[in-house]
Amino acid sequence: MNNAHIRRFIGTPEAVILADGDYPQHPLPLHYLDSVPVIACCDGAANAHIAKGRRPSLIIGDGDSVLPEHRAAYADILYIEREQESNDLSKAVALLVSRNIRNILILGATGKREDHTLANISLLMNYHRRQIRTLMLTDYGLFAPFSNIARWQSPVGSRVSVFNFGAKNLVSRGLEYPLYDLEEWWQGTLNTTSAPEAEVSADGDFLLYFALGGR
Amino acid sequence: MNNAHIRRFIGTPEAVILADGDYPQHPLPLHYLDSVPVIACCDGAANAHIAKGRRPSLIIGDGDSVLPEHRAAYADILYIEREQESNDLSKAVALLVSRNIRNILILGATGKREDHTLANISLLMNYHRRQIRTLMLTDYGLFAPFSNIARWQSPVGSRVSVFNFGAKNLVSRGLEYPLYDLEEWWQGTLNTTSAPEAEVSADGDFLLYFALGGR
Repeated sequence: MNNAHIRRFIGTPEAVILADGDYPQHPLPLHYLDSVPVIACCDGAANAHIAKGRRPSLIIGDGDSVLPEHRAAYADILYIEREQESNDLSKAVALLVSRNIRNILILGATGKREDHTLANISLLMNYHRRQIRTLMLTDYGLFAPFSNIARWQSPVGSRVSVFNFGAKNLVSRGLEYPLYDLEEWWQGTLNTTSAPEAEVSADGDFLLYFALGGR
Repeated sequence: MNNAHIRRFIGTPEAVILADGDYPQHPLPLHYLDSVPVIACCDGAANAHIAKGRRPSLIIGDGDSVLPEHRAAYADILYIEREQESNDLSKAVALLVSRNIRNILILGATGKREDHTLANISLLMNYHRRQIRTLMLTDYGLFAPFSNIARWQSPVGSRVSVFNFGAKNLVSRGLEYPLYDLEEWWQGTLNTTSAPEAEVSADGDFLLYFALGGR
């Protein structure tokens, strides 16, 4: 998808969560970092964000990774959660939901340790099932969770991958390679759109990944 | 795990496959790039490898991403596979297996597009089920597939994540947080070892991720 299509798909997030993976470099995630009014930084991500000359609205985590000077300077927006049952992303989502924010764009959630990347991606489905809209935008693509049906517009030839989260009867329209009931993560990757509107339908939940790029 | 433990775990690979994600930066993957005799580069990865002053043993892929000057200079080791049913990593594994190489270390398979990262990780399980030993080492950790039992030595406090691939009756020994039948990717992340030898047993297949680092 091109940037305009991705922006239309994302719409207007109420808040950004900046996780502590790779700090965004692509103009599109940076646009949201500079325009969304609430930027909730997961722990160490606050250091990177401040180092880039930006200011977090909230800092959430177990607090161990926030630099001591920031911990003092940002004490009024620092939320320390020491419990170990959830990761920093989950803590950030919980804090935003407690403020009635349920339309969230997650940035910085990939890169660095790959086990964190996998956890963060799968949490999207978790939030989706709780009626919290979380999309994950990286320097390379957009992850979006769906139930039963996904329909989207994008230039013909846009690259898309489908990850099944237990759904049955997967069917596609407007994709070059027809879908089936994917059992392994690699099976739904590297598809492309063959029509300006494409559709995936299924009984259950799945995740789409739209690659950023010219198409 | 520290580098010595990771090296003991990996042993002596017969070949390295260098995929076209982020080029390795950590000394440990670089050690293998400089010491394993067979380096099979997936398509565009050959450009990065040559730019670093190294020489591929084999270049495999659909050929579109190899720079024209390299395509000529390395014509004798260039294997063009245009079929679209498998990705470049799969093509590289197939070529090595055709040469009776079945003990393979995969590098450069994460970073850049996250759908490729997910596909590459899940392919490990695919090869494992075909009795091909593939381990995936990144700048941040090591992915290793197992069936039924995994037992490993590492310093107490080593960080490990477990990803279930359909196994039942998951049980752990020597892990801080006891395992159970994980249904979501995030559920098995962020564990740490509590003994010098740890063990995961299950009926079926699972993937372990050992984080690189002091412990």
